[in-house]
Amino acid sequence: MTEQDIREAYERISSTINRTPIFTSHSINQLAGRELFFKAENLQKTGSFKFRGALNAVLKLKARGQDTLGVITHSSGNHAQALAYAAKLNCIACTLVCPSNTARTKIETSKLHGAEMVFCAPTMPARIRTCNALSSSTGASLIHSHDDLDVIAGQGTVAFEFLDQVNDLDAIFVQTGGGGLAGGIAAWVKAVKPSCKVFCAEPYGKELGKSLAAGVPSWPEPPGTVSTIADGLRVQRLGEQTFPIVLANCEREVFTVTDAQIITAMRLIYERLKLVVEPSGAVGLAAVMTEQAFKLPAEIRRVGIVLSGGNQDLDRLPWSKHLEDTVE
Amino acid sequence: MTEQDIREAYERISSTINRTPIFTSHSINQLAGRELFFKAENLQKTGSFKFRGALNAVLKLKARGQDTLGVITHSSGNHAQALAYAAKLNCIACTLVCPSNTARTKIETSKLHGAEMVFCAPTMPARIRTCNALSSSTGASLIHSHDDLDVIAGQGTVAFEFLDQVNDLDAIFVQTGGGGLAGGIAAWVKAVKPSCKVFCAEPYGKELGKSLAAGVPSWPEPPGTVSTIADGLRVQRLGEQTFPIVLANCEREVFTVTDAQIITAMRLIYERLKLVVEPSGAVGLAAVMTEQAFKLPAEIRRVGIVLSGGNQDLDRLPWSKHLEDTVE
Repeated sequence: MTEQDIREAYERISSTINRTPIFTSHSINQLAGRELFFKAENLQKTGSFKFRGALNAVLKLKARGQDTLGVITHSSGNHAQALAYAAKLNCIACTLVCPSNTARTKIETSKLHGAEMVFCAPTMPARIRTCNALSSSTGASLIHSHDDLDVIAGQGTVAFEFLDQVNDLDAIFVQTGGGGLAGGIAAWVKAVKPSCKVFCAEPYGKELGKSLAAGVPSWPEPPGTVSTIADGLRVQRLGEQTFPIVLANCEREVFTVTDAQIITAMRLIYERLKLVVEPSGAVGLAAVMTEQAFKLPAEIRRVGIVLSGGNQDLDRLPWSKHLEDTVE
Repeated sequence: MTEQDIREAYERISSTINRTPIFTSHSINQLAGRELFFKAENLQKTGSFKFRGALNAVLKLKARGQDTLGVITHSSGNHAQALAYAAKLNCIACTLVCPSNTARTKIETSKLHGAEMVFCAPTMPARIRTCNALSSSTGASLIHSHDDLDVIAGQGTVAFEFLDQVNDLDAIFVQTGGGGLAGGIAAWVKAVKPSCKVFCAEPYGKELGKSLAAGVPSWPEPPGTVSTIADGLRVQRLGEQTFPIVLANCEREVFTVTDAQIITAMRLIYERLKLVVEPSGAVGLAAVMTEQAFKLPAEIRRVGIVLSGGNQDLDRLPWSKHLEDTVE
């Protein structure tokens, strides 16, 4: 992943994506003890940064003339919506392999974009198997949600814009699932502003820190998932493409947050920034507000946070009394 | 209310207020059958447009040297927060007369801005009586939430920016409570772009249309309130200052919406624009989506809507299952 890959991705997608705005809040700064800048990718088309990577991958496929048999992916989340919309804009057929327990609203949104939905058992091996079999039989190109260099380069354009919009960031905290966003952002930042640290933020159970310390992926096989409210970050291990990029460009220190910390940060974003985000979108702020982050040197003053997505089910806001009552 | 009043208000407050951004949504446009432009005053300082009027009034008072004994108002809502913050910024004492049933969170926010809180019985006559008595005894200047020319001129700056940001609006729909926002916006629009219609949008029970048709205020005395979820629009009658401005500048046709229509519009704003608004903030969109609005001529194509405020109690989102359960 080079600076040039990300620069070319930006040239490819910039006329179609939203240049998302930066938000700030005095009161959140006071709580966090630093000056925070929020890149509002929840306002990106399809409601998340995923549109950047999906669109870049689709446009590269098209440029190589490999788009005639369509694209396929296995995802029930933001990548699925993003790929369906990127494919629709380019008149390419799109197939989405979804676990059978995918929420109805997500299915409807993807159908709106004209994608064909194929359902499979709700396990990672079943998703991969179904997707690979279909890809082989139909010739559709697999666009992986994170383990794809074109997707990673597309996500890196978040940092391309961010550093252009905010001068002198000392650090960026990036929520990390499969590592596409963290890898893309870190690759760009280290190329053009190496003094700016890129920290990974993760839900409990992911244990990215162990693998970064070891210098090799140290997760169990087969790939597992993490139990967290941040449904965009449930995949436990980073990908074969993303791990080395994250290892080369991100800090070794990882920030791990609980569901309670994520919910607190999420609510703060609704209250103070007046923005709708999903739990994964609040993980960067949650990380900045941990005890661990308060111990970072004071020189890390201006901090970037990515509000990665806003596709929240409004009937299931995690602080709702109804949900608490149900649990009790 | 002249063009010059609003222009001067803008010069006075523009370095302090947020120039709030414009949001658009293809999918909401499709539902509404028009091209909609949302002015995000929920992102204004203190979370609503009220800061514009309050700040303009405070700065004019200061310029006249009449600020030494402080300011006072009776309000439990967005005007109270706005005035408290405008006063704090200008090192002026602020007293807020609040009904005894004011929500705790609103009291806390106002206290944060250093305002002194005085409680009274939860009726409009009690509020007015308490406020006038205090104003007389302390010499504090009353800054009314809407029936004040400086406040109205401040609210008019919403339109000053809006017409600058969006070319060729055919109409603006403005939620109307006491008429400060509608009056200020309509005065500016009619002065600089008379072809753009300004429509008032109101909750059921307000019956502004009757008074506009009669050409004189036709509400019962003493002033009453309307039962609506849009708590910023509960005052039934327009003010002595605002009524003639609205009468002179707004269309006679008024759009009246139910609580159910407000909640539908509010949810759409959260889902599609990813913005947090309070019920009053969604009334403009609710009006554009009524049967009545669909019958407007097709020439009214580009329509402005003001997302007037975002101070929503997140524990009481009106579509929450918990609230439904409580009602059943």
